[in-house]
Amino acid sequence: MYSRSSEQNPNISDAQSIMATILKNLPRECSLTKIEYEGPRIALHTNNPKFLLENNKILPNIVAQIKKRIVLRIDETLRVEEDKFKKIVEKSLAKKSNISDILFDPALGEAVIFLKKFTEITNIESISDQLTLDTGWKVTFKKAPKMISSIKAINKIAKDTADYRVQFFKKVGEKIFRERMNANYEASLISLGGFAEIGRSAMILSTNESNILIDCGLNNYTDDPLLKFPRFDSIGKKLSDIDAVLLSHAHFDHTGFLPTLFKYGYQGPVYCTEPTAYLMYILFREYVRNNGKFAIYNGIDYEKIFSHIIYLNYNIVTDLTPDIKVTSYNAGHILGSSSFHFHIGNGDHNFVYTGDIKFGKSSYLENAVWNFPRVETLLIECTNGGREDSFMTREEAESKLINEVNQVLKAKKIVLMPTQLIGTSQELLVTLDQFIRQKKIKKCKIYMDEILAEINSIHEFDSEFLNKDLHGNIISDEYNPFRSKSISLISDIEGQELKTGIVIYPSSTLNCHKTFEYLKKIATDPDNLIIFTSKPNETSLARQIIEGKKMLSMGREQIEVRCRIESIYSLNSHSDFNQLNAYISRLRSKLKKIIVNHGERSKVQNLSSYSSKVQNVPTQYMLNQEALKLL
Amino acid sequence: MYSRSSEQNPNISDAQSIMATILKNLPRECSLTKIEYEGPRIALHTNNPKFLLENNKILPNIVAQIKKRIVLRIDETLRVEEDKFKKIVEKSLAKKSNISDILFDPALGEAVIFLKKFTEITNIESISDQLTLDTGWKVTFKKAPKMISSIKAINKIAKDTADYRVQFFKKVGEKIFRERMNANYEASLISLGGFAEIGRSAMILSTNESNILIDCGLNNYTDDPLLKFPRFDSIGKKLSDIDAVLLSHAHFDHTGFLPTLFKYGYQGPVYCTEPTAYLMYILFREYVRNNGKFAIYNGIDYEKIFSHIIYLNYNIVTDLTPDIKVTSYNAGHILGSSSFHFHIGNGDHNFVYTGDIKFGKSSYLENAVWNFPRVETLLIECTNGGREDSFMTREEAESKLINEVNQVLKAKKIVLMPTQLIGTSQELLVTLDQFIRQKKIKKCKIYMDEILAEINSIHEFDSEFLNKDLHGNIISDEYNPFRSKSISLISDIEGQELKTGIVIYPSSTLNCHKTFEYLKKIATDPDNLIIFTSKPNETSLARQIIEGKKMLSMGREQIEVRCRIESIYSLNSHSDFNQLNAYISRLRSKLKKIIVNHGERSKVQNLSSYSSKVQNVPTQYMLNQEALKLL
Repeated sequence: MYSRSSEQNPNISDAQSIMATILKNLPRECSLTKIEYEGPRIALHTNNPKFLLENNKILPNIVAQIKKRIVLRIDETLRVEEDKFKKIVEKSLAKKSNISDILFDPALGEAVIFLKKFTEITNIESISDQLTLDTGWKVTFKKAPKMISSIKAINKIAKDTADYRVQFFKKVGEKIFRERMNANYEASLISLGGFAEIGRSAMILSTNESNILIDCGLNNYTDDPLLKFPRFDSIGKKLSDIDAVLLSHAHFDHTGFLPTLFKYGYQGPVYCTEPTAYLMYILFREYVRNNGKFAIYNGIDYEKIFSHIIYLNYNIVTDLTPDIKVTSYNAGHILGSSSFHFHIGNGDHNFVYTGDIKFGKSSYLENAVWNFPRVETLLIECTNGGREDSFMTREEAESKLINEVNQVLKAKKIVLMPTQLIGTSQELLVTLDQFIRQKKIKKCKIYMDEILAEINSIHEFDSEFLNKDLHGNIISDEYNPFRSKSISLISDIEGQELKTGIVIYPSSTLNCHKTFEYLKKIATDPDNLIIFTSKPNETSLARQIIEGKKMLSMGREQIEVRCRIESIYSLNSHSDFNQLNAYISRLRSKLKKIIVNHGERSKVQNLSSYSSKVQNVPTQYMLNQEALKLL
Repeated sequence: MYSRSSEQNPNISDAQSIMATILKNLPRECSLTKIEYEGPRIALHTNNPKFLLENNKILPNIVAQIKKRIVLRIDETLRVEEDKFKKIVEKSLAKKSNISDILFDPALGEAVIFLKKFTEITNIESISDQLTLDTGWKVTFKKAPKMISSIKAINKIAKDTADYRVQFFKKVGEKIFRERMNANYEASLISLGGFAEIGRSAMILSTNESNILIDCGLNNYTDDPLLKFPRFDSIGKKLSDIDAVLLSHAHFDHTGFLPTLFKYGYQGPVYCTEPTAYLMYILFREYVRNNGKFAIYNGIDYEKIFSHIIYLNYNIVTDLTPDIKVTSYNAGHILGSSSFHFHIGNGDHNFVYTGDIKFGKSSYLENAVWNFPRVETLLIECTNGGREDSFMTREEAESKLINEVNQVLKAKKIVLMPTQLIGTSQELLVTLDQFIRQKKIKKCKIYMDEILAEINSIHEFDSEFLNKDLHGNIISDEYNPFRSKSISLISDIEGQELKTGIVIYPSSTLNCHKTFEYLKKIATDPDNLIIFTSKPNETSLARQIIEGKKMLSMGREQIEVRCRIESIYSLNSHSDFNQLNAYISRLRSKLKKIIVNHGERSKVQNLSSYSSKVQNVPTQYMLNQEALKLL
């Protein structure tokens, strides 16, 4: 409605000046065939890739000037057929049998070669470059994970829609690099879900140029549509207003509603890390499988997502729209989980959304990043933000875990650990496997539901998102907990004979159809033990058991819980109250305002008032369906 | 997008059951010709009005059952021509010459007879009733004000659009009494202007059924469109989404943008008190006159408003939409100023917007109402909400005023009092005139710019909105400060000879084209005195003078401020910090939340934190372009 017509729009000729800078800095020998937007990147297509690969300072130099992401692409006419590609690769590697799979993405001209043993190739970079030149495909090597089916399934979608994706990337790029329509900068945060509650996390970062949807979750613990879905119905934004979707991590309460957006016609980009994409694919598939005709979308709906994904790497600035840049940082919560730093306008406002964070020790992930250059407004999660959520230290937790487990193993009995499918499962697997190796606990079976094998495989596939040591160990085949010999998969709990050991059961709430079978086998023995690692929500069976309920019934069957019950919440994938405050303390001097979300109302109230009073930063929590002016 | 389909909509047959109740309770003798919506009222048209006038408990009895406003209308066929009406009236009154004017509203079938002397008719009610029966017009008597031109101008618009208005009232009623579309209740407050600032007050009370625009102001102290207009551009609501506009009072910062809404196509109802309508008409007219081609609308635009007004009386519950009822209460700020109490859903939430309030003694208005039956959320203004805004008591202020004025009058000099056109002008006029009558100050001239004569006339016309004593005095001709013999109007300050006395100058900021002429005559004499009664904003000339600026220049001319400068802020039309807190204290026990608006950022911050800590009610301020969930 209004614009400050007297001011000069500073970005009017940005797109032009970017092109001019690129052309000015590229010698003739680069032999460009086209310059094209590829989503947030500018793709330089060449039929002389050798020159730019050898003169490898030219592109970084341009990037430094234009501050945009550039990617080198080999002209499509130089690409060899897939069959020929395989032959060339087989020839160039010492052992042909080392290749497990090759996946192609024709839209980007990229090929990923999966190796059984990474260590057999010493000079991996020069081999990649040579193969790139020889085949016309940008080649990368990955270590082959134990299971590759979901990775192949996503690759198939990408391949099947390659032509569409080429046009999609171009269109997205044109929108990102369009001229700004406003000279002034304004920004608001609009809460759709996950504020003063957990579940259905979703919000819109809105400026007068852009609308970015951040997370798009579903609350699977209610059937009331007003509580289950993000409140898109009452915020005055249409699906077509959304320029981009960003996902902080794969968990269903942050992603589960996304297929519905595609079902109803969203066709824009979805930005997330690679593990987030692969992990959420598995979650969507399981949701549709488990919910049958009650699922609110089907395979066709969620598969659409995977032809619209643009991957984010940690620590790389990416233009989302003409006035918003985002950088994804490790959030330490689960594999590929991000905190997002948003740079709005010309740095007029810097907004950080933590996503779910673990600001504390983990056996398989790095600690959450906190050292952002600038932050005016921080939006922080609050799962464990109650005053009662000051858990024991990691050291105390580990020693309690060791003692409890050893006691049970000594009696040749079983420990059941109900936990999240993604996150704490891996934390426990790696921790327990290391304890066994370090002989801190007795050698024993680590039983896991078979779905975990697939989840674990994504951790192998994207091992660069694990902590440095573990990544190094896996790549070098020195140590890989996800292939530990202690692991024993359970495909059918009823038919399974359970020896003494630890059962990692991927449902922290125990609200799962298999639960009863597990409990029947384990909970009825007074010498067995259940250890909870997260505080389950009020409506869950887990909560009832923690609170002492003994008789459980399902249909006509009844079981009596006779085993011991313990909890070690420090092991869970969220920061506790102290860790949240430690995180805030680190950032405090930079902050103008803190907003608290993703926690029960009493917890967001507690953290807000503590942070306002003790940390002395103006802090508030929002409810859903609110809008808050940031700038 | 979502609805709780399992619940039964409780209001499905409301409209039907209302009709049934009405018909059931009306005896045959009522002789109804039609029942029709008339905005928020149900109009019963009869061709036997005598019966219902005589059996005057029938209608109140129905109102008590259906809880809707009912109005009795005489069938149009019984109405006499205007000329005949005049003759009948002249016959029925003792003195024909007592009639000054008669105004007709054919859309409602109402006639207002203006009397020069009210006291000459003793049995006014029975005469009205008899005239109503004899003429077919609903007759009321009013005391004739000094100037009637703007009152006639508004009446002319209403008459010229009478046919349109009949349809308009019907359409509005059909919207109000429609079935609800949702069974659940939700409500949000959306801030468009006047939050953490003064000027351009506007907000939307939004439920899943309704959108009520509350106030619609313009900030006339800036030319930046992003600061000048309410932010309709960024809230995701279209003009056509707005069901109703409510105006708390006439001041331009609460009404000035309304003509633009009509210019761009708004055709819905505007609810306000009668004085608000008449006073804002004068303000719109003056704005267009003074701003010429720079005015953002013209006479045609603002005149449209006056065929869409539905009057609110204090203390009467009015249905605005199927899920919102409003009651207007005296706010003590200016003539006809309202605080609004909103009853949302079935009393699921009660929201009070104070508007601008004076919770303190005034010489011409009643104190602001505070004893609402229920209030969960209070939105309170904060013009004087800074810690520094604890002004002296009314008693101290009056004694200071008396001393200062007498000192100047003794020296036969002049006191200049820059003040608001509407509000403090009348406060000062009445106060000073009473001081003269009480001989607390010397008899002297009270000079006023001639525009004030028109404003004062609205105070006579709507004297029932003054405090009880003053209203009684005016009606009975015992005492009328607006006709005081001390008053001397100034039409041309340059040509005016100023004797000793007090000049009420209707610009508190002094940012007015006539200011220089006034200052030239008054400020240059060291024995004269300027008394400010409100804290002027930072960009104003008044502020510069208060802060000690001596040399003022306009064009080539310069004047030196040599007179004394004083301020008595207690006399202004807003509550001071103590009065705001006294008001909050009265309501405290009922409140769940307080929101603070209409004040500079530092002041809303101060009142919020004081109210949170000392009053112990969760209090926050909002910025513009925010949305806050109430329910």
